[in-house]
Amino acid sequence: MSALAAAPSRDFVDLRDWGAGAAIDLADLALQLKRRPPRSRPLEGRSVGLCFMNPSLRTQTSFQVASASLGAHPVTLHFGNGTWNMEWRDGTVMDGQASEHLKESVPVLARYCDVLALRAFPAGTSWADDKADPWLNAFRSSSRVPVISLESAMGHPCQGLADLMTLREKADPVGKRFVLAWAPHIKALPLAVPHSAAQAAVIAGMDLTICRPEGYDLDPGVMEWCRAEAARQGRSVTVTDSPETAFDGAHVVYAKAWGSLASYGVPPPQDSAFRDRWRMTAAKMAKTKAGLFMHCLPVRRNLVVDDAVLDGPASVVIDQAENRLHTAKALLLKLLGGL
Amino acid sequence: MSALAAAPSRDFVDLRDWGAGAAIDLADLALQLKRRPPRSRPLEGRSVGLCFMNPSLRTQTSFQVASASLGAHPVTLHFGNGTWNMEWRDGTVMDGQASEHLKESVPVLARYCDVLALRAFPAGTSWADDKADPWLNAFRSSSRVPVISLESAMGHPCQGLADLMTLREKADPVGKRFVLAWAPHIKALPLAVPHSAAQAAVIAGMDLTICRPEGYDLDPGVMEWCRAEAARQGRSVTVTDSPETAFDGAHVVYAKAWGSLASYGVPPPQDSAFRDRWRMTAAKMAKTKAGLFMHCLPVRRNLVVDDAVLDGPASVVIDQAENRLHTAKALLLKLLGGL
Amino acid sequence: MSALAAAPSRDFVDLRDWGAGAAIDLADLALQLKRRPPRSRPLEGRSVGLCFMNPSLRTQTSFQVASASLGAHPVTLHFGNGTWNMEWRDGTVMDGQASEHLKESVPVLARYCDVLALRAFPAGTSWADDKADPWLNAFRSSSRVPVISLESAMGHPCQGLADLMTLREKADPVGKRFVLAWAPHIKALPLAVPHSAAQAAVIAGMDLTICRPEGYDLDPGVMEWCRAEAARQGRSVTVTDSPETAFDGAHVVYAKAWGSLASYGVPPPQDSAFRDRWRMTAAKMAKTKAGLFMHCLPVRRNLVVDDAVLDGPASVVIDQAENRLHTAKALLLKLLGGL
Repeated sequence: MSALAAAPSRDFVDLRDWGAGAAIDLADLALQLKRRPPRSRPLEGRSVGLCFMNPSLRTQTSFQVASASLGAHPVTLHFGNGTWNMEWRDGTVMDGQASEHLKESVPVLARYCDVLALRAFPAGTSWADDKADPWLNAFRSSSRVPVISLESAMGHPCQGLADLMTLREKADPVGKRFVLAWAPHIKALPLAVPHSAAQAAVIAGMDLTICRPEGYDLDPGVMEWCRAEAARQGRSVTVTDSPETAFDGAHVVYAKAWGSLASYGVPPPQDSAFRDRWRMTAAKMAKTKAGLFMHCLPVRRNLVVDDAVLDGPASVVIDQAENRLHTAKALLLKLLGGL
Repeated sequence: MSALAAAPSRDFVDLRDWGAGAAIDLADLALQLKRRPPRSRPLEGRSVGLCFMNPSLRTQTSFQVASASLGAHPVTLHFGNGTWNMEWRDGTVMDGQASEHLKESVPVLARYCDVLALRAFPAGTSWADDKADPWLNAFRSSSRVPVISLESAMGHPCQGLADLMTLREKADPVGKRFVLAWAPHIKALPLAVPHSAAQAAVIAGMDLTICRPEGYDLDPGVMEWCRAEAARQGRSVTVTDSPETAFDGAHVVYAKAWGSLASYGVPPPQDSAFRDRWRMTAAKMAKTKAGLFMHCLPVRRNLVVDDAVLDGPASVVIDQAENRLHTAKALLLKLLGGL
Repeated sequence: MSALAAAPSRDFVDLRDWGAGAAIDLADLALQLKRRPPRSRPLEGRSVGLCFMNPSLRTQTSFQVASASLGAHPVTLHFGNGTWNMEWRDGTVMDGQASEHLKESVPVLARYCDVLALRAFPAGTSWADDKADPWLNAFRSSSRVPVISLESAMGHPCQGLADLMTLREKADPVGKRFVLAWAPHIKALPLAVPHSAAQAAVIAGMDLTICRPEGYDLDPGVMEWCRAEAARQGRSVTVTDSPETAFDGAHVVYAKAWGSLASYGVPPPQDSAFRDRWRMTAAKMAKTKAGLFMHCLPVRRNLVVDDAVLDGPASVVIDQAENRLHTAKALLLKLLGGL
């Protein structure tokens, strides 16, 4: 949990900050909004500033549509592409690439917009540096309006919220088994999504199994929080390196590639035996208890997961992505007081 | 005509699919909307997803303004620029540049938006490959909402619709002569616009002359359709390689550069004698019967057409571009049931 | 003053064109709008075309939010990024990089939008060429709707208007001392902002001091206008090369880096003695009469101005940037008749 957010936070930057109850309330509000869309324009005249330092499809589109459907105006900015390059570090002499400091850009945007959101992926060279989420935290310190994380090094709370909503919508999750399944990739990907997915599963009251190769553990702080929350709910957290047995009896499989904290920034092995062992396949799904298949998207087909799984009846990935829209609406209504 | 669209289609991807009558109805609806803009917000709460794999000025602006003026929210995405790189091929192991498959991105966007639109130019190395319009057809197969083509290899139906509207607005076209005039360029340009313009002229009930150098014929399937539709209306289709005589008595001249299917991807000759012979000039326009000058824009001045023609009284290119706005409104109302 | 705008102009492209009185009226309208935002949607159904050839944060965001908050639809285009490359020169044979001429793109956009705006920075190789503002003036000549400059070589009138509003809001400016303070930079920056800031100060009725190194004078035409307007109001214009004495008793300090017209395009000296002499510091601010600190942003911290100044109580840079929003609203209402 970030230091700034030790107290209940004005910002939505990590599923853990507001606590499990608030996350469930938001997910359930989103479920209501999905069934019965709000008719009036409750956020008429408000503006939503969406700032991206990295690519996005679902996030930018769902927040744009969510904002507009509530009557608010979305502003989408890609930092460094049509805007200035930004700096976040304190005290630096700015005679390099960056033309503008977050200490100016964020307060200015906070005068134009009623809520600000930021996507800032980790730099990928030092986990100690990245896990402090310097971009997100500098952004938050400079904003006088609420801040939403659209994914930082430590988490992807909007995805986690949609995951939680999907579990409650599709899986009757309490007491069921959730397997977070590490998957191959050509790059050392961020840990934000597995962090948030693990939290969502635990908040949903599920037994959590993380199946990953040695060296691919999640951040210790995230694991500690998951164990504590699971214990509070009388559930378990298990870690295994056996994809041969991990899926037996699972109710939900959430596949995801992520990088190693032990060898930070180094891509995983690329040989086909390794890929075959860890890729999600129909044979693995067959071992589950008619389990659902989840993934946050985008997904690389036949590297992370086989076509047969993605295109099969167990896959709820499109519903899960649709739920990004409904959770974005719920979050905007919550933060902007439109309820 | 694409295989998918053998039956009347939910999608608007080729002027030929819905038939000449439907195209005329849409053009006339656009003429009505131009005279009397709709006052209320008939598409309030709807979202329009505009996906671009290539540059656009008129298309993105006209669809944005059309959507907003009808109360809908436009979402503009440039694939690979601020979003992920996309894949369309079936069964591939995605361990290359592309992070996401259309099989996920399109269904997801179809959950956020009520209509989707795609611009995907041809790759330019094999006409056999390009004419199958793999991007557009993969996009369509994955969408549960109507799809609009914003230009593919085979056609630019939104431009063709605006061309048809312009002919009916300005040229009293039935039984008049329409000359589609090939023009020089530095590149081997796509054939989408000449395909749609030829179709628009024939649908409008005009005698069609295509004046082009040897080797620059349109796609045989398009020509066959044009000949059949012209015959149905008792009109003619002629092909000539003589810019010296083709303009005699023409009522409308539509200039356009396009590439050779015989030497696919190879730019046309660049010598000045060739350029002078084929460039559209005031002298050629003087041979017409007070003919109108049309072009889809963007146009390279003094390479495709002389300043004197573009800036002269016969040119209707700005009206033609304005009609993109009105036809976009008509199309959105038709597809989204706002009439 | 541009030749085109010798008469009171339909366009808003230079603070000097409409005269001091009109600028003050607009600034005061913006102050009213800041205190009491307009409630209805006075520009419902209108579209605002925002065209950028250079990066922007405040300008694009403030105009987008201003447009939307008044009920209009903003269209943001980055020329050459997702759109075509543009040409402005008359009579050229367009067989190079540019696919489209402003003679087509601007009239077309003027059919889609009710007002057009352009940001076009100077090329930076010849001041004689740049000061004619060829992009902006070609854009204006082709538009049938009002044009707003979002910064050209000669000025940044929207910034100047926000500066004027900020002076009237914060500084009770008549008869007070305004110091425009040249500052170091790694590049030879444009003169648009110092031109407009000097004009704003003079319009506000202040004594203007420009403190800059030898060779860094503003354009002679701008200086002449400032001297005439100051004389009309019984105020003075002074130029000095002494940052040691210029700030004594100042009421407002406006820091800004800009390039030399004498050595056009050449970056200023980079040695630390020179930088230290010209950088804005707390020690210099201490010499003022409790003076306010202004800057247009973006600003390079500790190169142009020290953290202690920007983060200190004298700085009004965030308010100044917020005023871009209110002046944008005032300008749109003025140009589109929404008052």
